[in-house]
Amino acid sequence: MRTARRISTSINLHLVQQTQRHTRRFALPPLPAFTYRQTHTTAHEKILPSPSEQAFNETHPQTTTTTTSTSPRPKSTSSIMPVNAIDFPELQACLTSNAEWAARVSKDEPHFFEKSAKGQKPFLLWIGCADSRVPESVVLGRKPGEIFVHRNIANQYQAGDDSAQAVLEYAVGFLGVRHVAIVGHTACGGCAAAYMSKPEDAGNKETTTSLARFLQPLIDLRHSLPEGASMDDLIVENVKRGVVDVAKSEVIQKQWAKAAEEGSEPVYVHGWLKDLSTGLIKDLLCSQGPDKA
Amino acid sequence: MRTARRISTSINLHLVQQTQRHTRRFALPPLPAFTYRQTHTTAHEKILPSPSEQAFNETHPQTTTTTTSTSPRPKSTSSIMPVNAIDFPELQACLTSNAEWAARVSKDEPHFFEKSAKGQKPFLLWIGCADSRVPESVVLGRKPGEIFVHRNIANQYQAGDDSAQAVLEYAVGFLGVRHVAIVGHTACGGCAAAYMSKPEDAGNKETTTSLARFLQPLIDLRHSLPEGASMDDLIVENVKRGVVDVAKSEVIQKQWAKAAEEGSEPVYVHGWLKDLSTGLIKDLLCSQGPDKA
Repeated sequence: MRTARRISTSINLHLVQQTQRHTRRFALPPLPAFTYRQTHTTAHEKILPSPSEQAFNETHPQTTTTTTSTSPRPKSTSSIMPVNAIDFPELQACLTSNAEWAARVSKDEPHFFEKSAKGQKPFLLWIGCADSRVPESVVLGRKPGEIFVHRNIANQYQAGDDSAQAVLEYAVGFLGVRHVAIVGHTACGGCAAAYMSKPEDAGNKETTTSLARFLQPLIDLRHSLPEGASMDDLIVENVKRGVVDVAKSEVIQKQWAKAAEEGSEPVYVHGWLKDLSTGLIKDLLCSQGPDKA
Repeated sequence: MRTARRISTSINLHLVQQTQRHTRRFALPPLPAFTYRQTHTTAHEKILPSPSEQAFNETHPQTTTTTTSTSPRPKSTSSIMPVNAIDFPELQACLTSNAEWAARVSKDEPHFFEKSAKGQKPFLLWIGCADSRVPESVVLGRKPGEIFVHRNIANQYQAGDDSAQAVLEYAVGFLGVRHVAIVGHTACGGCAAAYMSKPEDAGNKETTTSLARFLQPLIDLRHSLPEGASMDDLIVENVKRGVVDVAKSEVIQKQWAKAAEEGSEPVYVHGWLKDLSTGLIKDLLCSQGPDKA
């Protein structure tokens, strides 16, 4: 493989200047932690700088007040290619928005981050699609700390998938979430690929890529549907199957048994669908909980 | 296993009433798609109701104007336990916020959802932790459609994990994202578990649960760090290793080769860290891109 390079840029000073501007704009007192370099040396004081960071620090003293990064993305003029976030306007915009968001939160709820750093107590585990159009906390209007999240291709819950199962185990067993929601959405690319597969693709065990392997259960589901089934049928059935499979899982079965024994609250599993054309999430009314004892 | 039950409630009318209230509050014209039942019969008209939904429709004509669900979470008075979203105030609050959010978006940008339903063109793939305190689009202030997302326990990228690799393949190969960011965060529970493991836990191949298997690479990394390494060191090293492993992946190597051949833009891989105590995301300055040709 070809090796890759790292380069240190004037990121720290640039960001300090940015955040100072935002601090003024939001009429907040200066927040020391707003300087990324200070964050590094205070919150993570035990972390030693990497060799490249160390070299950067040595050649760019923190008292310097000028920045050489004036164009949004400096074109490389040497054999060293700049690749860090500050070199790309779209990433710089993300970090700027992040600083603005943090300033707003600190202003509205001064102890929010202090409390947040102490622990989490989410009430919901969201198993959703990786699709960029379904960011759970934005579409449900939730704050950080409320929803534990697993997102993969086509919001699948597969028996052999350690990643999804580990999330379920952690969320239900350690964090004690009250609810698990499998959330599908219209116009899902993974479901579209499965929907357009050929009947002979069902049961294929000779897939060569991770994506093909990960889509295989969805392809099998597609060809198990009655003739004339639409892509939306597949999307809904994928969610409903996920709900059934999560409910059947050892993690949920154990939690239900324990809740029944202790008389404590059981966890519930829900199936939802986001309609991209309206932004609305609909309950598919396929929730599962334990039988009443 | 014990079987689970479904029950139909007065969800549709209740939600219609709720959304009508919000419509008034935001002084918007009535949006037909705000009735969840109508969403079902218009946007998803090809989807046949499930037997339970059909039974519900037959016994609860859409013209009924009363609702029996007056308490936030009706206690079960029969052997049938209500389990759908409407039965839980915390989930009801989510769906209500969702309707409010969708109304705001429609007002601010009338064609947003119409465009959104046609496709996605995210510029960033975020590989982050499932932790509820790191919702990418909230903390970066991004709209739906901008960030493709994979979230798992401790933002890991493992060679044998089809789920993460399928996301990378889809995001880079099909959607053409410009950037991949591996994003860790302080006070990570998965990293804490690995950090507190014993030296003899390294290299364990007899793990019995999905969570233990999924944490094993992190446990191995923990015991490869120099003596005296802190938990923050582990969190940072986990991100940096993720960046290196993603950059080494077949998907990225192929994209770089293609970009060099065609003279098109290569993808870049970044490592970031969210400090929960400030809400700020810091670039760890360990980005990777191809060497300049």
